[in-house]
Amino acid sequence: MTEEVQALVGKEFRCLDKGFVRLIDVMGDDSAIVQAARVSYGSGTKKVHEDRGLIRYLMRHLHTTPFEMVEFKFHVKLPIFVARQWIRHRTANVNEYSGRYSEMKDEFYVPDADQVRAQSAMNKQGRADEAFDAERAESIRTSMQQTQDMLYGQYQEMLSTDLAREIARINLPVSNYTEWYWKIDLHNLFHFLRLRIDAHAQYEIRVYGEAMAEIAKAAVPLAYEAFEDYILHAQRFSRTELEIIRSTLSTLPPLDELQARGLSAREAREFLDKLQKD
Amino acid sequence: MTEEVQALVGKEFRCLDKGFVRLIDVMGDDSAIVQAARVSYGSGTKKVHEDRGLIRYLMRHLHTTPFEMVEFKFHVKLPIFVARQWIRHRTANVNEYSGRYSEMKDEFYVPDADQVRAQSAMNKQGRADEAFDAERAESIRTSMQQTQDMLYGQYQEMLSTDLAREIARINLPVSNYTEWYWKIDLHNLFHFLRLRIDAHAQYEIRVYGEAMAEIAKAAVPLAYEAFEDYILHAQRFSRTELEIIRSTLSTLPPLDELQARGLSAREAREFLDKLQKD
Amino acid sequence: MTEEVQALVGKEFRCLDKGFVRLIDVMGDDSAIVQAARVSYGSGTKKVHEDRGLIRYLMRHLHTTPFEMVEFKFHVKLPIFVARQWIRHRTANVNEYSGRYSEMKDEFYVPDADQVRAQSAMNKQGRADEAFDAERAESIRTSMQQTQDMLYGQYQEMLSTDLAREIARINLPVSNYTEWYWKIDLHNLFHFLRLRIDAHAQYEIRVYGEAMAEIAKAAVPLAYEAFEDYILHAQRFSRTELEIIRSTLSTLPPLDELQARGLSAREAREFLDKLQKD
Amino acid sequence: MTEEVQALVGKEFRCLDKGFVRLIDVMGDDSAIVQAARVSYGSGTKKVHEDRGLIRYLMRHLHTTPFEMVEFKFHVKLPIFVARQWIRHRTANVNEYSGRYSEMKDEFYVPDADQVRAQSAMNKQGRADEAFDAERAESIRTSMQQTQDMLYGQYQEMLSTDLAREIARINLPVSNYTEWYWKIDLHNLFHFLRLRIDAHAQYEIRVYGEAMAEIAKAAVPLAYEAFEDYILHAQRFSRTELEIIRSTLSTLPPLDELQARGLSAREAREFLDKLQKD
Repeated sequence: MTEEVQALVGKEFRCLDKGFVRLIDVMGDDSAIVQAARVSYGSGTKKVHEDRGLIRYLMRHLHTTPFEMVEFKFHVKLPIFVARQWIRHRTANVNEYSGRYSEMKDEFYVPDADQVRAQSAMNKQGRADEAFDAERAESIRTSMQQTQDMLYGQYQEMLSTDLAREIARINLPVSNYTEWYWKIDLHNLFHFLRLRIDAHAQYEIRVYGEAMAEIAKAAVPLAYEAFEDYILHAQRFSRTELEIIRSTLSTLPPLDELQARGLSAREAREFLDKLQKD
Repeated sequence: MTEEVQALVGKEFRCLDKGFVRLIDVMGDDSAIVQAARVSYGSGTKKVHEDRGLIRYLMRHLHTTPFEMVEFKFHVKLPIFVARQWIRHRTANVNEYSGRYSEMKDEFYVPDADQVRAQSAMNKQGRADEAFDAERAESIRTSMQQTQDMLYGQYQEMLSTDLAREIARINLPVSNYTEWYWKIDLHNLFHFLRLRIDAHAQYEIRVYGEAMAEIAKAAVPLAYEAFEDYILHAQRFSRTELEIIRSTLSTLPPLDELQARGLSAREAREFLDKLQKD
Repeated sequence: MTEEVQALVGKEFRCLDKGFVRLIDVMGDDSAIVQAARVSYGSGTKKVHEDRGLIRYLMRHLHTTPFEMVEFKFHVKLPIFVARQWIRHRTANVNEYSGRYSEMKDEFYVPDADQVRAQSAMNKQGRADEAFDAERAESIRTSMQQTQDMLYGQYQEMLSTDLAREIARINLPVSNYTEWYWKIDLHNLFHFLRLRIDAHAQYEIRVYGEAMAEIAKAAVPLAYEAFEDYILHAQRFSRTELEIIRSTLSTLPPLDELQARGLSAREAREFLDKLQKD
Repeated sequence: MTEEVQALVGKEFRCLDKGFVRLIDVMGDDSAIVQAARVSYGSGTKKVHEDRGLIRYLMRHLHTTPFEMVEFKFHVKLPIFVARQWIRHRTANVNEYSGRYSEMKDEFYVPDADQVRAQSAMNKQGRADEAFDAERAESIRTSMQQTQDMLYGQYQEMLSTDLAREIARINLPVSNYTEWYWKIDLHNLFHFLRLRIDAHAQYEIRVYGEAMAEIAKAAVPLAYEAFEDYILHAQRFSRTELEIIRSTLSTLPPLDELQARGLSAREAREFLDKLQKD
């Protein structure tokens, strides 16, 4: 582990009003990806690619297994409704705080005023780009908080009658914070990030995605750069869209100009191939 | 699909006060397990075992892959806190109702009076064997219901101000009902059942387990019987426990008596082997 | 199951010289995808999309879980070296013929003359586009076959000395045929097909992919069409490639022309968004 | 990582005649299991269990998720037929040497003389307990080696005509060595070991299992001890077997004697519960 990554271990990345992401441990770095890829290619290829080129090649061509050779472990504190979206990523290991064994804590998520927004007009599952006016937002925030206080009071009261914890907690809201250890390989972390730092993801999970993206960027800088270039900021075009692009592009830049604009020699050829009429 | 199973498709098995399990579809039956096992053993073994014996042999010796060849799909309506335990079983396919796309419904779980119980004295994660007295239980039930009504009222009110659904729902409690389609293979269903119809599982998930167990029993009767005999009602003894049993058992019944008591000839020999001093 | 699909069950799709793919069973069809997707969207959305549009929307936006609700089971006979590539797809259920329990059969893959080709000059992992000349190809084929006969003879001879099957088989070549039952959900089948009917996949696994693609096309025609349009014949462009395309495209067709060329109204807007300068 | 584990990293554990297992990296140790378990139980339980007791409790009660928090990465060189058994464990990450990209090496497995044995009379899938006589064994070994030399010669010859590597290799035998990086969490490693260091596993995979068991024992001594006591050397008894044991055991030792014989107070009570008549 480099000193830079070592310095990140245990550091709290604050998320939302009371949550966090902390890196607990990481196995491997960019060189672990290269090491695993090279066992596939055998000794004959050892000098052909340098590391960055190899990692970018693997990412571009969806050779995903070498990225599985890096593993991250995080400690996360998050509202239950975020945990419910997060857990849908099945290829990960999880140990969560249990409301059956232990008392849930008096911590609930209240959105910041600028996140108190109307239903999106465009997007059936999202919120609008603008927040409610300050007063209206504040009144909603206050009301949310009062409800949470009241619910936690009821919870405490039920526990004081010795009602079983596993029953007493059923009226706690999904804004209640929970925590877990979460362990995942880099390939599946990238898949998580791709879906969860996307503009269509709910804001409240996006902030966790962004914190983990920052950590990943420090831990595997070459792989993260490749992920950004070839996955995160890439776009896929359907068969019909490709036909439209092909017929609309009159002339394409020649190979040397493509390279001047940032493609490798190999990518430049691949690029022209993709735009070739079938 | 036999007529008996066909008759189960779509039938609501009521669970808790407002939930259900419905079988949507099933691929394969006992004979699909046998068919898959026989591809491993090749044609030479076709007549050696009859189906029941083969299925029992596979279950007993943890040859689990043939059980993966049967697949079930269920439609389930369940409280969020049950869904959170359930989803920990990762080897399954899930589509859940979304509180971002759609309004959550005015349906909440309230435990029956006989489930309103104290914290267990023995079991840090469970409830006592006896319910609270009727009056105390009823007062807790009434209070829970009032809180749920109040929370749903607040939710509706927030939606009426056009607050985004994905925010408005954050104070809905984990007693709120959700629903999903859940698809799983038989091996993993057995694993789910083993953990979730166990006395240590929370009562509220156990009732769902029991409904699915009833369906599985009808759909794969031989496999279910083997599951009961070799897994569900079996016990594992540690190295030290085995030593104690071995030294405490003075004489074991002879092979013919073991068979008279229900073991097959092969099982009788395996039984004696397991109890042999190392 | 439609009559068309019913007619496919059990039918041998010949693959290579002695292999096959046979559909054993299928759970669900296009409507099962729609059914699962609609549980997510809730009742409010039931009439908004018609089925084809919904399926295409799900595929385009990588909402993959509804596609997991369809399940296929195949019986496959294939050379060991193909089985070794195939098994890398982990999200599937497998029961394979066992060379420990049973004798391996006297069936080996010999490539057709037109597949006897030189190492590709372009592609470190592939073969050239042209076959060797007929005579040279035939001499290689003959030599391969003689070696296989000799190896099977040695195997039989060792078995006749009562050498354990699990040892006797270790010099059988990876061209030896094996068979298995293989069960997979549609989402993961599409992932398999995307990688294995691609021109970079080894020819010998591609023919199996193509057989299963034909079966999938008959069983879930709408999903298969969407898979072809949005995944199989789509292309992804990296961040840099996108910048080049954006700056090279002088003017884009207006919305109505885009629709005339085959995009839906929604896709046309999405298309322009993707090509918008950041 | 302790110094003892650090000293194991990179060390070759020889397996069979030309293979090995090498530990490449490990994330976590016994304390990582405890750390993850305690997030479930919450702060209230921190002092109740000491580490060893907690780990043994988790193992005994199949609370498997904390064991997933430790991750191992191995570099393994192994014959193809062993790789084919190994790869059936799907919950792992793999990068294997590719016979499409690179030339296969001139290394083949030849069993030691004492492993050249007859088919087992008892076990359809295994070999006998005694080796063939020395002369017969040696003659089989020599013949195997000659065949391997001949096959590698043919392979080289085909490559020299520029036949594509992916075709030329199809007559190489499953005794040919390959290598891979293999990464797995501790829970799944224990599952692998349970099946593969068992007497029913093929000898050739068992030696790899034993090498990894030795490494695991050094890296997570408390967890490994619990695995041995509660899983590896434990036995499961079916419903009928339990009834026979219960009726045959006249009297059980009292609690204090059970503890004197090695059970904890809690285990002693659990033991009596398991043997109680239903």
